[in-house]
Amino acid sequence: MSTESKRTELGQLGEFGLIDHITANAQPKNPSTVKGVGDDAAVINPKGKRMVVTTDLMLEGIHFDLTYFPLKHLGYKAIVTNICDVYAMNAQPKQVTVSVGLSKRFCLEDVEELYSGIYLACDKYGVDLVGGDTTSSMTGLTISVTAIGEADDKLLCYRDGAKETDLICVTGNLGAAYMGLQLLEREKQVFMADPNAQPQLEGYDYLIQRILKPEARKDAIEMLAKASVKPTSMIDISDGLASELLHICKSSKVGCRIYLEKIPIDQETFRLSEEIQIDPLVAALNGGEDYELLFTVPIAMHKQVEDMGVSVIGHITSEDSGAALITPEGSEITIKAQGWK
Amino acid sequence: MSTESKRTELGQLGEFGLIDHITANAQPKNPSTVKGVGDDAAVINPKGKRMVVTTDLMLEGIHFDLTYFPLKHLGYKAIVTNICDVYAMNAQPKQVTVSVGLSKRFCLEDVEELYSGIYLACDKYGVDLVGGDTTSSMTGLTISVTAIGEADDKLLCYRDGAKETDLICVTGNLGAAYMGLQLLEREKQVFMADPNAQPQLEGYDYLIQRILKPEARKDAIEMLAKASVKPTSMIDISDGLASELLHICKSSKVGCRIYLEKIPIDQETFRLSEEIQIDPLVAALNGGEDYELLFTVPIAMHKQVEDMGVSVIGHITSEDSGAALITPEGSEITIKAQGWK
Repeated sequence: MSTESKRTELGQLGEFGLIDHITANAQPKNPSTVKGVGDDAAVINPKGKRMVVTTDLMLEGIHFDLTYFPLKHLGYKAIVTNICDVYAMNAQPKQVTVSVGLSKRFCLEDVEELYSGIYLACDKYGVDLVGGDTTSSMTGLTISVTAIGEADDKLLCYRDGAKETDLICVTGNLGAAYMGLQLLEREKQVFMADPNAQPQLEGYDYLIQRILKPEARKDAIEMLAKASVKPTSMIDISDGLASELLHICKSSKVGCRIYLEKIPIDQETFRLSEEIQIDPLVAALNGGEDYELLFTVPIAMHKQVEDMGVSVIGHITSEDSGAALITPEGSEITIKAQGWK
Repeated sequence: MSTESKRTELGQLGEFGLIDHITANAQPKNPSTVKGVGDDAAVINPKGKRMVVTTDLMLEGIHFDLTYFPLKHLGYKAIVTNICDVYAMNAQPKQVTVSVGLSKRFCLEDVEELYSGIYLACDKYGVDLVGGDTTSSMTGLTISVTAIGEADDKLLCYRDGAKETDLICVTGNLGAAYMGLQLLEREKQVFMADPNAQPQLEGYDYLIQRILKPEARKDAIEMLAKASVKPTSMIDISDGLASELLHICKSSKVGCRIYLEKIPIDQETFRLSEEIQIDPLVAALNGGEDYELLFTVPIAMHKQVEDMGVSVIGHITSEDSGAALITPEGSEITIKAQGWK
């Protein structure tokens, strides 16, 4: 929420005034966007490509806490987390719609902050904002984003194509966003106990960035294309590695073996995990919000994926062998699903 | 909310169990749906058509009141109100995504009710449920729907094509949903004052149906196609006739003259308007939620549109003449915009 003195009530603009205000700069840049904001629906010309569509709902108090989540970052993250799903199909995001529910707590300056982040992400990833809905809300902030992308039919990657002996690969590192969240939650508690306390976040810039300003792995999709590697299956890691592995295994009717010591974990994650006594592997397996890509490739592609700098963390096995983690000592631990309860 | 004895907590299923449960019957029927529920994104094959995309956010306490809105009807309405926007582009709805935020108040049986209405509308309008998001919510029910449709490029109707002398046409009748809402709100007040009171809704079935179970004017789009009439502009009437007329005038850079006595109003609307002393024209102009179609056609199409049974309520004028209503006595009233504040 804006802490500056200026506060313009949304009621002064009304619904249509607000829409005009936030979409004034929404000029489509993609040739496939025939009609953006301003009609009953946006119009897209897919030009022979397949279209992919994905959507997410973000609710205040569930997905974000505005005590430490700046509105600009939230807008940015709302776009990024959606287009991650488009990249996970090996497709290119092209359009988004953004719906926002706003309670009376929020003023025009807050909405401008939120949309500055939305447009920043749209610009960075070359996506057009083509529609949405703005409405009042009884309680808090609601954000719903739908992302639309395109791909050639034969390039699309689903969850169901993993085959026995395929290598299991992960981009970047895992667990950092979860650790960043723990840090922010800890400092929130300190602040609530003593409003004069200064937050202790030094040395953990990367963890904070991972939770407050995640990026989508557009670069990894481009590297795959450049190396002519089409994954046999792919998914983005939003709910933690364990859950995503199980999605691929279930869809592809296969099992897997993951080597714990191969799971990529950042130094800051290790450092904070010691400080606050959380197992970094638990953060990687069940923490979520990493927005990295998990994919499988035929074993013959080993060199290509290693050259790309992704981590090969295990391999696909037969369905009846199940999904399991292998400890450095060689014992097996069955992988269990997560998700909210 | 379910009033029956059975109550299965959502926590018993967890997120993935709930998703499996509500999407078990989501089998795509449209050939353009390549991949529905079950991956990072749905995949659509537009086969040379243009795609249209529209989205709406519905929040408890703002858009609906569950004291008198059955969950099944709410699910139905959430789909219908979105695909109305697709028809308003003269396109055919083909896919929807549905995201739902649920507080602890809601049990599995409630979610089943909601989705039974969603699937009923999908079946009736030939639309595939291809994706979505389910999440917990701190307060109440949130529903976000995105609808996707297709059309030949040259059949698409925008808001900006109305030309001077064009006839202004409306399907069905206006103001009934607003009057139905007034009736339900009145009976809610009576019930809150005396929980033993029986609701007095007799004789107003149509008004109740218009607010609780609106339909999209698929039939009107089909009639237009059959009569080879392509409107010069079209919009759906969700915020009241006045507001939609101004959208068309602004987008098309034209003015309009609407004859008050030509605005179609149902007998039940007239009857209740006398009983509760609300001007039925105010309900038609500013009430909203009619989900009828407002469109313009060249004056040469007069006979074709009259034969279709739509109401011709006025004509398009030059931009500088503004947008105005003409009373039966011949005086002019400037049309003003609405929208939420």
